[in-house]
Amino acid sequence: MPDPVLALDLGGTKIRAALVHGIGAGESSADDSTEEPPRLERIAETATPATAGPAAILGAALELAEQVRSGTAVRAVGLSSAGVIDSARGRVTHATDSLTGWAGTDLLTPFRERFGVGVSALNDVHAHGLGEARFGAGRHHGSLLLVAVGTGIGGCHVLGGSVVAGGRGAAGHIGHVPVPEAAGIPCPCGRTGHLEGLASGPGIVRLAHRLGAGTALRDGRALAAAAQAGESGAREAYRIAGAVTGRVLGALLNVLDPEIVTVTGGVAEAPGPWREALADGIRQEAMDVVADTPVLSATAGSHAALLGAAARCLDDLAAPVAARP
Amino acid sequence: MPDPVLALDLGGTKIRAALVHGIGAGESSADDSTEEPPRLERIAETATPATAGPAAILGAALELAEQVRSGTAVRAVGLSSAGVIDSARGRVTHATDSLTGWAGTDLLTPFRERFGVGVSALNDVHAHGLGEARFGAGRHHGSLLLVAVGTGIGGCHVLGGSVVAGGRGAAGHIGHVPVPEAAGIPCPCGRTGHLEGLASGPGIVRLAHRLGAGTALRDGRALAAAAQAGESGAREAYRIAGAVTGRVLGALLNVLDPEIVTVTGGVAEAPGPWREALADGIRQEAMDVVADTPVLSATAGSHAALLGAAARCLDDLAAPVAARP
Repeated sequence: MPDPVLALDLGGTKIRAALVHGIGAGESSADDSTEEPPRLERIAETATPATAGPAAILGAALELAEQVRSGTAVRAVGLSSAGVIDSARGRVTHATDSLTGWAGTDLLTPFRERFGVGVSALNDVHAHGLGEARFGAGRHHGSLLLVAVGTGIGGCHVLGGSVVAGGRGAAGHIGHVPVPEAAGIPCPCGRTGHLEGLASGPGIVRLAHRLGAGTALRDGRALAAAAQAGESGAREAYRIAGAVTGRVLGALLNVLDPEIVTVTGGVAEAPGPWREALADGIRQEAMDVVADTPVLSATAGSHAALLGAAARCLDDLAAPVAARP
Repeated sequence: MPDPVLALDLGGTKIRAALVHGIGAGESSADDSTEEPPRLERIAETATPATAGPAAILGAALELAEQVRSGTAVRAVGLSSAGVIDSARGRVTHATDSLTGWAGTDLLTPFRERFGVGVSALNDVHAHGLGEARFGAGRHHGSLLLVAVGTGIGGCHVLGGSVVAGGRGAAGHIGHVPVPEAAGIPCPCGRTGHLEGLASGPGIVRLAHRLGAGTALRDGRALAAAAQAGESGAREAYRIAGAVTGRVLGALLNVLDPEIVTVTGGVAEAPGPWREALADGIRQEAMDVVADTPVLSATAGSHAALLGAAARCLDDLAAPVAARP
């Protein structure tokens, strides 16, 4: 039995870590699908010191990593992180304000020095998509588009078991497609009118307020409960957000033609009219040839990004990303 | 010197064929970039009997192929065709009305029986993109998004020297993204409100008429000349179409993050305000991290699809598509 991989997921609010057992190095998704699923051990999390700067964030991550490793030999460290990640250099190249000063951070060196093994890093939505493609709903499919709708809206296209990361690691920003219903609404990227400003969790809360929902409904949890109880502004906000997200997704089916789509995140998992409206929106835009693309719920679990980070780091050790075509 | 590849491009108005010399089998784009460019010999074309049915279209293609081959030994036949192509089976699975009855056509068998060599087929925009990626503006880049704006609007994402064809061969339909300016305008795909209905060549002509351009300006050539002469409706139509296309392209940079974009096709090549408006539209939507993606004119020439079809067929013979991850 090979040593486990130490996997970490560095997000805007939490840092998670675990030991991952049972992932083969450099195996294709087809091979993975015939195996036992990987097993997570000693799952732990800590609050991200998000405003304290990169040194504090890395310090907290290293401390959590030490605690999870707890003397066990690990064969590699796989990191998933918020921000645009240059995986060839292991650096954060762009980040939003959710992690102060995060852009420019070297993710590899601190972990390499501490643990003395190979380290690799990728974007957290990419890690999530890879985990889902290899070990979740995508296991028996050649390609998958993950759509994550929560605090933001992100996506990840996985093709033949590899993330389509983009020339700068920036691919998958599906929340940054313009939609007319978001005209004038600021987007965290600095533009206006993008899907994310309207149809992310915080966007839906603001939309519900504009539609007359009580301003006491301040977060997604309260809004989802109100929608389920029949509050009309809350329901209408989920319906509009689902339909608009569905129209963007229908357009993306025309552009990407993935074998399957998986939806995940707080908004996608809330009960209510969102999911049905999503299907309506897809129907409105998807061409006949792609209109029956299965849209499934993600199945790799809440730690899919840890699985993806572990899988990617073994791929990278087997064939360094800089040497790939 | 290995035998040439016999390449054909089956389009809605013309069938083109040529012998292609100097493409190595299964070479990566990096290898191609260090070689002499491939050479086309005996380029020929004939009108497509578009409404006469598949047997007539294939008959015309076989006749043109025989004429081009003219007794020369060929090592393979590479086909580029309009329609959605299932490359693993060599079949047209979906097609527009531009080729009557084309869906369901078996492209491989007639050529295999006639020429006794390996045959492969791919969509014509995919072939164009592959030709451009391997032998044109994409030669020194790991990925490329081709944007073709003419009678229709199509695209092709090429990654590591391979076309991202999609689960059903339908990827790249970038003309089928909804844009508010096209609301209510019918799209050839059967939906309404897609980019193609507004901003393709015929869409721009109709738009110019709505903007007051004389209805004597009946085609793209006349409209382009009028725009260059300063006719305001014509200029405004190109400006709007360029800006809207640019906004979609900006969104696609956020989703795909290609290293470079190449634009091609009659609309993209016409002088006038389209290209500048395209750049404005991109700037409006592209996130900072991808905003400086180079947008270049295609350089592989008017026969890029023949080059792509030839390259793909040698790839397929080296590693059959059905066996790929």
